[in-house]
Amino acid sequence: MTSTQPARGMRDFLPDDVRRRDYVVEIVREVYDRYGFEPIETPAAENIETLLGKYGEEGGKLVFKILKRGEHEASGQADLALRYDLTVPFARIVAEYQAVLPKIFKRYQIQPVWRAERPARGRFREFYQCDIDAIGSTSPMVEAEQIGAVAEVLDRLTFQDFTIVLNHRGVLTGLLDASEIAPERREPALVALDKLDKIGEQAVEADLVTRGVAPSQAARLMEVLRTITGHSGNEQRLQELHRLLDETPHRGAVENLGAIVRLVAATPAAARVAIDPRLARGLSYYTGAIMEITVPDLPGSLGGGGRYDNLIGMFLGSDVPACGFSLGLERIVVVMQERGMFPAAASQSAVDVVVAAIDESAQTAALELASTLRRSAGVRVDLYPDVAKKMDRIFKYVDQRKARFIAVLGSDEVAAGTVTLRNVAQKTRDTMPRADVASFIQTTGKT
Amino acid sequence: MTSTQPARGMRDFLPDDVRRRDYVVEIVREVYDRYGFEPIETPAAENIETLLGKYGEEGGKLVFKILKRGEHEASGQADLALRYDLTVPFARIVAEYQAVLPKIFKRYQIQPVWRAERPARGRFREFYQCDIDAIGSTSPMVEAEQIGAVAEVLDRLTFQDFTIVLNHRGVLTGLLDASEIAPERREPALVALDKLDKIGEQAVEADLVTRGVAPSQAARLMEVLRTITGHSGNEQRLQELHRLLDETPHRGAVENLGAIVRLVAATPAAARVAIDPRLARGLSYYTGAIMEITVPDLPGSLGGGGRYDNLIGMFLGSDVPACGFSLGLERIVVVMQERGMFPAAASQSAVDVVVAAIDESAQTAALELASTLRRSAGVRVDLYPDVAKKMDRIFKYVDQRKARFIAVLGSDEVAAGTVTLRNVAQKTRDTMPRADVASFIQTTGKT
Repeated sequence: MTSTQPARGMRDFLPDDVRRRDYVVEIVREVYDRYGFEPIETPAAENIETLLGKYGEEGGKLVFKILKRGEHEASGQADLALRYDLTVPFARIVAEYQAVLPKIFKRYQIQPVWRAERPARGRFREFYQCDIDAIGSTSPMVEAEQIGAVAEVLDRLTFQDFTIVLNHRGVLTGLLDASEIAPERREPALVALDKLDKIGEQAVEADLVTRGVAPSQAARLMEVLRTITGHSGNEQRLQELHRLLDETPHRGAVENLGAIVRLVAATPAAARVAIDPRLARGLSYYTGAIMEITVPDLPGSLGGGGRYDNLIGMFLGSDVPACGFSLGLERIVVVMQERGMFPAAASQSAVDVVVAAIDESAQTAALELASTLRRSAGVRVDLYPDVAKKMDRIFKYVDQRKARFIAVLGSDEVAAGTVTLRNVAQKTRDTMPRADVASFIQTTGKT
Repeated sequence: MTSTQPARGMRDFLPDDVRRRDYVVEIVREVYDRYGFEPIETPAAENIETLLGKYGEEGGKLVFKILKRGEHEASGQADLALRYDLTVPFARIVAEYQAVLPKIFKRYQIQPVWRAERPARGRFREFYQCDIDAIGSTSPMVEAEQIGAVAEVLDRLTFQDFTIVLNHRGVLTGLLDASEIAPERREPALVALDKLDKIGEQAVEADLVTRGVAPSQAARLMEVLRTITGHSGNEQRLQELHRLLDETPHRGAVENLGAIVRLVAATPAAARVAIDPRLARGLSYYTGAIMEITVPDLPGSLGGGGRYDNLIGMFLGSDVPACGFSLGLERIVVVMQERGMFPAAASQSAVDVVVAAIDESAQTAALELASTLRRSAGVRVDLYPDVAKKMDRIFKYVDQRKARFIAVLGSDEVAAGTVTLRNVAQKTRDTMPRADVASFIQTTGKT
């Protein structure tokens, strides 16, 4: 017999899981809708060329590839691949539909992505991303609005202690230059820096050297980063960055960072943003501001994003400015669950009433009653399908379904046109005309 | 440059598409919830053994397979496959979680599936199924409730002319026996019969012969089917089936069909069900009643289902009775769109107001105003990110966003604490205190 487990690193969601996830997704969707983002969806599989070369060397290894079909299957070649993020498919969409999309276009997209990572706590091979992206503007208003939208989502979910960490790829380049790290070592250096969270400063410094950065340069970079983060407060860090980079080509990046921070003050993210020059972000396509959401008790982040002004050009031939922010559904759900942040209603699987026929002759009446009750506002109705010889079975089922009432129909009830309605919690029962059952259930408050 | 089209047979959904799909999914979910079904979700990819051997020879060829990763990639072997339907993953779930699931368990699942079919109008390689299934009972109440639930979904979507065609695998076996078709030819015969819709009676008769049925037997089967369908009305067809099969081991199948039809009369599907002995259904796992929804102007069906009492046993070792019904989201959306059945609100992408700063100094005020308005009930707010040098650009954008109002902020407005609010349709404008904008928008009715 075949195994009944889900594939490695992937998960099944039972009813309570699905309801909790839907609760989060509903709030995300509502906020993004209210912010004027429009929904789009793309296929799970993309032509393999669409994804190749977009995620850097590390990322590319983690793409799930789909075997050609039919006579080509034996070749072992792949022509499709599973979506690795929502950004590259979005860039493809912008290129494909540029004639019909507005020049300035804001979209949200809530769909799963697949990465063949080694599974770990809170890291899965299939997970949902909730992305917002905007194309067509280089204004820092874009970053500010997105940071505000994300903060509003987290506020609505009752997160109280998140920080949106902010940095800029141009600032990072400036700091690498200031440490005399050569341009061809920039990308490896960012890969090393991206691990700071996980492995700490010393290990990053060693990793920089492994990746070809001279020990003195690595030491200097770490020193520069320490100097900036020695200042607390965004204004002080900005001043330090200005001091370091104002005479370099990267002055504009610092100014951009400052503009974003000032604009964010007018959004729900006002008290949430913290400039941190150590933030690197893994993906290679970022060109400007980068951001990441952290909460104290979670290694890694709840989400992140940044500006990527060149990616769409890889599909379109001419560049289109773009910026996006992605929330990780799984991470959010894990933290909310561990902290007991879900309201009871978020995983409420209770039905109001189970209708049960105790004679075969009452089955039609049971179905009729169920149909009538289902037309009554707000009443969730289950039907016990078997003719129960013993009430015990029904009681057990009703208990599992967390039903408030049992509507029992036997030959007596059918003959009299009545229903015996049992109140499960109060262990009472009333026999009443069928027509009265709906309002009785509606008016008996949920406890 | 890489192609920007989606993969063959798969589709991108732009905002209006997504909203229409969500409109349908919301109704499906609401009805299934009200009927006491519980949501579950499973991963897109399954271990390949889970899917192999479940769909018959034809089906198996259409499964998308995922290449092993890392050092095993070069072997060309596949270890995972994309979900082909929602029934087999559900059967796996039932086996895996039997200790925690109720013995009688009703679930719904709304997720995409993938099949490498030749794409055609209304046939895609990625499509959503909306499935309900119930395990643990052999009662015809199960079929009746599911048929009722599906009819209620279609009613709510305002379909007026659908038929739920009903047949039974046991009846089909009986009719094949009555035509003296040997047991080992049954499965090929059903494959031929399943094409009746598409290729007509004569071609099916020829196809039966191609598949090893003797010409006289093929002719006899077609004759038997004609005799039954010569009667109109379920009662007459049931009588004819009783006449043909009462002295055979398949009498029980006819009785089951009759019980389902009588119970359905007590559901919202009362006038919708039609027994048709020609209905075969493609999948090999059905064991009892089978059903399919047809509408006059669509070749193929809007959905279908049936009883499959042995499939879960393939995972569990012991059989668990089960029955399910699947709605095809794409088919439903295609028909509704062709017939203009979507209410205007179903693809409503309008925002209420676009906030625009016309001076850089007004950007903070614009973000503040947008944040305030977004906290106001029911107001959907977009922010024009650039400092527009010409109002033309803003007007063009506002037109694309179908906004009712433009809230303009320049240095004058900032100095005075006001906003200039333009009513797009009436081409009027009012300058008002910032605090008054929200209620002005809320009280100016949508036209």
